[in-house]
Formats: sequence, structure tokens, C-alpha cells
Amino acid sequence: MQLVTAEEVHRLLDYPYLIDALRRAHLGPPPFGANIVADDPAGTGNQFVSLLGWNGHGAIAAKLVGVFPGNLQLDPPQASVQGLVAVFDPDTGTPKLVADGEAMTFRKTAADSGLGALFLAREDAEILLVVGAGGLAPHVIAAHCAARPSISRVLVWNRTPARARALQATLAGRGVSVEVVSDLDAAVACADVISCVTMSRAPLVKGALLKPGVHLDLVGAYRPEMRECDDTCMTRGTLFVDTRGGMESAGDLCQPIAAGVIGWDAIQADHFELAQGTHPGRTRDTEITVCKNVGGGHLDLFSAEALMARLDT
Amino acid sequence: MQLVTAEEVHRLLDYPYLIDALRRAHLGPPPFGANIVADDPAGTGNQFVSLLGWNGHGAIAAKLVGVFPGNLQLDPPQASVQGLVAVFDPDTGTPKLVADGEAMTFRKTAADSGLGALFLAREDAEILLVVGAGGLAPHVIAAHCAARPSISRVLVWNRTPARARALQATLAGRGVSVEVVSDLDAAVACADVISCVTMSRAPLVKGALLKPGVHLDLVGAYRPEMRECDDTCMTRGTLFVDTRGGMESAGDLCQPIAAGVIGWDAIQADHFELAQGTHPGRTRDTEITVCKNVGGGHLDLFSAEALMARLDT
Repeated sequence: MQLVTAEEVHRLLDYPYLIDALRRAHLGPPPFGANIVADDPAGTGNQFVSLLGWNGHGAIAAKLVGVFPGNLQLDPPQASVQGLVAVFDPDTGTPKLVADGEAMTFRKTAADSGLGALFLAREDAEILLVVGAGGLAPHVIAAHCAARPSISRVLVWNRTPARARALQATLAGRGVSVEVVSDLDAAVACADVISCVTMSRAPLVKGALLKPGVHLDLVGAYRPEMRECDDTCMTRGTLFVDTRGGMESAGDLCQPIAAGVIGWDAIQADHFELAQGTHPGRTRDTEITVCKNVGGGHLDLFSAEALMARLDT
Repeated sequence: MQLVTAEEVHRLLDYPYLIDALRRAHLGPPPFGANIVADDPAGTGNQFVSLLGWNGHGAIAAKLVGVFPGNLQLDPPQASVQGLVAVFDPDTGTPKLVADGEAMTFRKTAADSGLGALFLAREDAEILLVVGAGGLAPHVIAAHCAARPSISRVLVWNRTPARARALQATLAGRGVSVEVVSDLDAAVACADVISCVTMSRAPLVKGALLKPGVHLDLVGAYRPEMRECDDTCMTRGTLFVDTRGGMESAGDLCQPIAAGVIGWDAIQADHFELAQGTHPGRTRDTEITVCKNVGGGHLDLFSAEALMARLDT
């Protein structure tokens, strides 16, 4: 059994490779998946998650991660999501590798958003706006730029500007130039791709301001009480999800649906249908596309298979 | 994160230590546990299991193992149970170690039976009979001898005698002397402790032959259609389980209960009650005690905590 460190995960799963691996994985049927979400018996609100996926003769993969939001307030701060992804031979159950869970989670989440942009963003998209400057922000920047190499400007907005500037400095050290913006509405109005990676409970992106042709990628708001965009985004946009499994918990979907603004039937397709061409995706340059990144164990499984394939070659 | 190999697991979790660690762990309340049992989507009958346990501020542990019976028929044969046990810091979710799953499973299963003998077997037990010569047999021998150092003779019976002789040869190489017996009934009649570790679907141990004072440990028959002992064992014996969680699937319990021979209320206590002294266990030298080893994720968690403690010192 091989240990794959965070550094190796990031090196092996570059976004052009991983986005294409996810696209190819979506050409088949959804694999088997099952989850355990355990609440801390001590009542802290922390959770521990076990996601199991079994893809025929491809792989068995299990992600085991803690979701401990308070880690960010520790001294020194720790990642809120930590754990591992383990991959097993589907013909014998033999453990093959154990990979860093935080790195695998960042990679699969951002590549999933990148895949949405590959299917849905305009091919000439130039301006990317990232809303939120947390751990996922550098990853969605890399993933969207991999999906749309036409992107030439990256704007970052964050509720606390200091964090956006810290991200800017970190990325500058890696040769990636981003602009910190303070006027979110103005940035929304000029962006071709908007990626929201926040823990917000109130809408940030106003649908009335969206430029025709924009692609809106929604990564946060994974709980019913969370929200990243307003109802107008959902009524102006053509709606997609990466997967329908678990989408009922996403605040940006369940809130406008509960309010009667849209119905579940407003969702046009998922990544399987987009990959397989049963839905064409974007149909005109002025169309506004909205894709809710719901996530799920199948993406961890697909990412683990992509990692295995890289290690085997 | 530390990798703990099978060899290290076996070295660190010697049975006197692990049985006492399990006993101490049973002094507290049962920890949180949840399971996924996934069937191979290819329809082979193979299964993959995720057991998650969370013990307050003790540890979070997850066992991920495949159960692939056909592995034994591969060339070369492989273990039917393979996988890993991962342990996480319960205050941050940080992964601490990954240990070999087969070794951890053998150790926790045998130590659980040893704990039953510690609570229930006569203190002057001399003759141990092990029924079955598979992978668990050397472990239950070591565990029962750790629980009852008075054991001076070990008899092994197996459906195919060649396998019992192979076990005898292997153990002789480690300085452990066992006698292979061909007459199971005669061996049952003289044993002070009987440990059944088979995949049998028909009763092997006849209750009418049990010696007064014997302790009967039942490890196989984890499915409703399996059976290691007959109804008379259950009516002559005082019945115990390691845990009530999952006991309804054990053929040696559910079959006589379905037949009306005994009721679920025949089960006097579990390992938590025995450890905490709310049930006295054996009350007289001539009492026949029967303990069904049901197993469960809490035992994997307790064993993982014991491994962590050994590595920390």
C-alpha cells in the first residue's frame, strides 16, 4: 500500500488532467455510492464523513474526512477538512493507496467546477471573478483557467479584504496574478465566469447585474440555510447541477424552490447528461448558465481512479 | 500519518495487553458507531464494509475492509478479508495512523473472544478445543491462553484434517504445541473451553456432550443461515453476547429463537455489563457458559485506541 502525500496529490492531479479524467468518468453510469455522516457525540457540531464508492472493476474508494470548522481558530490554525482517501482493488479488496484527504477534496471539488465550466462557460470567457478567498479559491482559479484558457483576468472579492490580499500575495509567489476588488456588484457585472466559494448565509451575487453569457459556478451553500446568489440568478439562468444526488440540501436551490420561485424541474441536466451529450449545455452566447456544485462520493471515486492511473503510468 | 504494518500490529497488540485494553474500554458507555455494507455492483457476492466509530475525546476510527471469499481460491491464494483501519484525532479530525486491516480484524476478533473467556471461563480451565483451523484459529488459541494461563492442552479439530495438521506444523514452528483430533464429539466431551471459528452451516458442537463447567465461544455463524452448535448447547448453557448490536443475524441465536427453543431474553448480559459488574458472569463451577462473539465497529475502535496508546508510549 502506497502513501500519497498532499504535495504528490497536487503534483499528479493537475487540473487539465483531472478535469478531463472526470469528463471521461462521466461517460459511464453513476457508480455505487453510500455515505455515513456522523455528528460528534460530544455535541461540538463537528462531523466525520465516510463516503464509499464502488465502480465495477475500476476501483473501490473510500473518503474519510473530518469537518471541523473550529480548526481554523486553533493556534496555529489547522485545515477544517482533514482526512484521507483510500483506494482498493475491486477484484480482491486489497488496499492500493492512501492519499491526503484535504488535497484530494480540494482537487475533486475544483475540478468538478472546472468540468462545469468546460461544459457551460463561453469559449471566449476572459474575466473570472472568484467570490471568497478561502482554501478553495486558488484551486477554482486554476481549474477554471484550465477549462477556459481564454481567461486573462482573475478578480477576487472577499468579505474581509485582507484575506483576499493574502491570497493575492500567495498566488503572486506562484506567478499567478489576481486583482483584489472591493466592489462586488461592479465585478459581477463585468465577469464572464463567476465562481462562489464562500460559507455565506446571505446572497452575494445579484442576478440583475449578471452579464449576458456569464457562467455562474456555485460551490458553497451546501446546507439549506446557506446562500451565495439571489433568486434572480436562478430565474435568469439556465440551471444545471453536477449531480442530482444530495442537491436538495443546497440552499441556492432549496430556498428558491421552497419559495415557489422555481421548481426542481428547472434543473436542465447534470454532468453525466452533459458529458454524454444527452443535453447540449449552453445553446447561445447570451445565455446565462448556472451550475450548482453539489459534490458526492462518486467524484472522490473518480478522482481516486485518476490518481491511481497517474501512479500506474 | 503513520503506516502500521501487519507485523507491527501483531507485535504491538499482544493478547494479554489487548484483552485488558478491551476490558477497560468496556467500562464506559458504548461509543457511537455506524456501518456501510456494500455489495459488489458487479454481482459477485463480494462485499466491502466501512465501520465508523467515534469515542468522544478518545479517537475516531474507521475500518475499511473487503470481504472477498473467492480470494482463497486465487493462485496464489489471498486473504479473504483485506483492508485497513484508520485512526483520527477526535478534536481536529487529523489522520494519525493507518493500520493493516486483516491483522487488526484478527486481533480484535480473537481478543473479544479472549475477553469472553476472561469473564466466563473457569479459572482452572486446562483443555482448550478449537473447532476450525482457518486464519483465526492461531489467534483464538493465543487469546484464550492469555485469558486463562491455566490452559495446558490445545486440541484442534477441522473438517479437513490436513488443514488442522498444517496449522499444527505452523504453530510448532512458533513453539506452540497443539494436538490434532479426529473425533470431535470426544474432544467436545473433555474440553474446558471450546472456541468455534468455522464457516459451518450445520451444528458441529452437540450440547448433550458438553462437560459441566465448560465455556463455549462461538465466533463463526455470523449470518442467519450459519450454525456452529445445536439447540441443546443453548438450552444447557447460560447465554451471553459480546454486544447485542447485530446479534439478530447470528445463526446460533436467531435459529433456536425462531424455532421457539429460547427467547431473546435468554441472553443474560453483554461485555459492557460483564466488565462493569452489573452481571456477575459465571456463578458456579458446573455452569455451562456460552458467549456469542457478534463483533462490531466499537471493537475495531477500541482496538485502534489500544494500538494508538502503544505507539504513543
